[in-house]
Amino acid sequence: MNCIVGQSGGPTSVINSTLAGVIKAAFDKDFDKVFGSRHGIEGIINDNIVEFDKDKFNENYERLMARPAAALGSCRYKLPEDLEDEVYEKIFNRLKDLEVSHLVYIGGNDSMDTVMKLNAYRKKNKIEGIYIMGAPKTIDNDLFGMDHSPGFGSAAKFVAGHLKTVRIDADIYDLESVSVVEIMGRNAGWLTASALLANQEREMVNLVYLSEMDLSKEELLEDVKRALTRDKNVIIAVSEGFMDRDGYFKTSHVQSHDSGFNHPMVAGVGKNISDYIHEQLDIKTKAIELNVLQRTSMLISETDAKEAYQLGYKAIEYGVEGHSGVVSTLYRDEKADDYRVIYDYVEVETIANKEKKIPSDWFDEKNNSFDQKLIDYLQPLIKGEIKQEMVDGLPVFINLDELIK
Amino acid sequence: MNCIVGQSGGPTSVINSTLAGVIKAAFDKDFDKVFGSRHGIEGIINDNIVEFDKDKFNENYERLMARPAAALGSCRYKLPEDLEDEVYEKIFNRLKDLEVSHLVYIGGNDSMDTVMKLNAYRKKNKIEGIYIMGAPKTIDNDLFGMDHSPGFGSAAKFVAGHLKTVRIDADIYDLESVSVVEIMGRNAGWLTASALLANQEREMVNLVYLSEMDLSKEELLEDVKRALTRDKNVIIAVSEGFMDRDGYFKTSHVQSHDSGFNHPMVAGVGKNISDYIHEQLDIKTKAIELNVLQRTSMLISETDAKEAYQLGYKAIEYGVEGHSGVVSTLYRDEKADDYRVIYDYVEVETIANKEKKIPSDWFDEKNNSFDQKLIDYLQPLIKGEIKQEMVDGLPVFINLDELIK
Repeated sequence: MNCIVGQSGGPTSVINSTLAGVIKAAFDKDFDKVFGSRHGIEGIINDNIVEFDKDKFNENYERLMARPAAALGSCRYKLPEDLEDEVYEKIFNRLKDLEVSHLVYIGGNDSMDTVMKLNAYRKKNKIEGIYIMGAPKTIDNDLFGMDHSPGFGSAAKFVAGHLKTVRIDADIYDLESVSVVEIMGRNAGWLTASALLANQEREMVNLVYLSEMDLSKEELLEDVKRALTRDKNVIIAVSEGFMDRDGYFKTSHVQSHDSGFNHPMVAGVGKNISDYIHEQLDIKTKAIELNVLQRTSMLISETDAKEAYQLGYKAIEYGVEGHSGVVSTLYRDEKADDYRVIYDYVEVETIANKEKKIPSDWFDEKNNSFDQKLIDYLQPLIKGEIKQEMVDGLPVFINLDELIK
Repeated sequence: MNCIVGQSGGPTSVINSTLAGVIKAAFDKDFDKVFGSRHGIEGIINDNIVEFDKDKFNENYERLMARPAAALGSCRYKLPEDLEDEVYEKIFNRLKDLEVSHLVYIGGNDSMDTVMKLNAYRKKNKIEGIYIMGAPKTIDNDLFGMDHSPGFGSAAKFVAGHLKTVRIDADIYDLESVSVVEIMGRNAGWLTASALLANQEREMVNLVYLSEMDLSKEELLEDVKRALTRDKNVIIAVSEGFMDRDGYFKTSHVQSHDSGFNHPMVAGVGKNISDYIHEQLDIKTKAIELNVLQRTSMLISETDAKEAYQLGYKAIEYGVEGHSGVVSTLYRDEKADDYRVIYDYVEVETIANKEKKIPSDWFDEKNNSFDQKLIDYLQPLIKGEIKQEMVDGLPVFINLDELIK
């Protein structure tokens, strides 16, 4: 029998480590053919399928693990709610044509909706011999049913590491300044919270605003004023999903140089906070977006990559054991002295279309302070580095061609 | 006798390598005391001076070389044109108090203005026994009198390396898209041109717009349309100083969601080009700013760092030989088969307040094509990597305290 794997949703730096784990397990478990579906489920629907070559894979899997962003391509395709829709029959017919018994879908909470629906169709139509598994990924760390999400650790490493360079950049001038760094994470503040890791030796990031926080723009301004009394250059990390209580930061109120009137414009919350502080305090402010670099960083956490690999490997194992509609997962071994994870699986319904936010007792927005529990939680996830292959001074990323027949 | 060193202007990733070279040479040449002026010339004016400790320096100079952004702090202070201004007397009195015979100022074309003026004051007043030297730096690569500027190679490595990740990020979806990446470099396109280095294996960056180019927004749009015929996801690198012939990209013409009318706003040229393409072609576009990360990258070119170190070392040597008002420089040994540089010095007047742009025969804006000479020029500058000290998953940068008495 054969198996097929697809990648879906936004990229991460270790989504290919999970792919490597799936392929390795599939060859270990003696699947005849290991297929890849290009651009997630769309590859199966549109007949855009590749077959992995065992020798090429064995030779190159470490390079695959060092390559950020989905090597198979991705999609944002949402399967219809109606299980009678013809696309389901098309997908399952295609799987039968390919003699596929196991499908692993690597993705986040939106993509797990696909796993859930395919499994629901399978159950409803009593289809035998086809197993649907999910393997998690997201830089947002907002997945239910697991201690943390693969992809998050590497993004957190990028964020915390680069905030240190933002700090030493800001510190060079003997002038008051505020730098506002906007960080991804959708509605969850996990990735923004990882900015706190930059404060290893000293307070490099002064203020952190999470999506989960509830405060007014005036309270934020008071925080900034207080921070400026202890640090000439204030560094603020803010979630892209953060909003002040009154929604003022939704639109920028830039004073136009030409017309002299205020008009709303669409800009990121970081830019809007930066403009607001500049207007209120008349000091130098700067908005920095870490943008796509944080989700496809070549600075990959070794811990993250290894866990991502295992989650891919386990997804195949659970499928071979006869599970379907499950997602490989991991939790922290609380009994171990050092950081250690235990792998497991959960039903896909636990994860799909849900968001996990930061517990409210891990932060205090009144004082912009954070519980040590949050730091202890984040710290192990960024450890170690995956070695990047450098040729002529630049990273060289593997192409899919180097892995397939 | 003693010497003093200061850093000025914008940060680079190797400005501390030059500092390390200066300090090493000073100790080698048996200066009694090696002072550092905090925040450039302002440290001498405001009595903000530190003294380097020989043992601490010898123990830590490799860590200093791995630290981006001026360890002594920087300034944007411009000395008055009038050499009779009292600040000059203040500076030279301070140097005499400190028994300083040699001053090295590390900076770009603006900062070399300081070297030029201090030397002019010294000559005018026939001050004996004080020598003023410059050591170059800038990520913009726009310095006259040398083959290339230290700091540029590391920034170019960051730009080209991260454009590769922008490319693989853009490629994951099976949709047409245009990503516009705005790159620093003031009025010179050198750093933007380094995007071309990302095209080692294949065309990862499709279009490059340099500050030096003269074309209309319509011509740019035609380039984009052509690029979209050969690549679904088009990546554009654009200089922050690029402007279309009619200045349309100076202000954004965003259609406001609320009011429905066009109004100008201040935004980067990258954002404005992105909005323009979106309006004209109705496809997904995205603007990415590499912002401060490119000038304080922890991904440091080994070639760049070593050259920067030598330029600092040589600045002291030239001063000890009795030169004043000179800047250490380097040119490419055209007779050597492999890349090799020869160190030299030039009069500061050659450099101060001037800008070196890309020769017009190295690019053809009609076809958005580039001469191999440009690639051959850029390629050696990004080679090799400086090892970063990583603790608990993050880079740890040396503090000035770890180097001074």
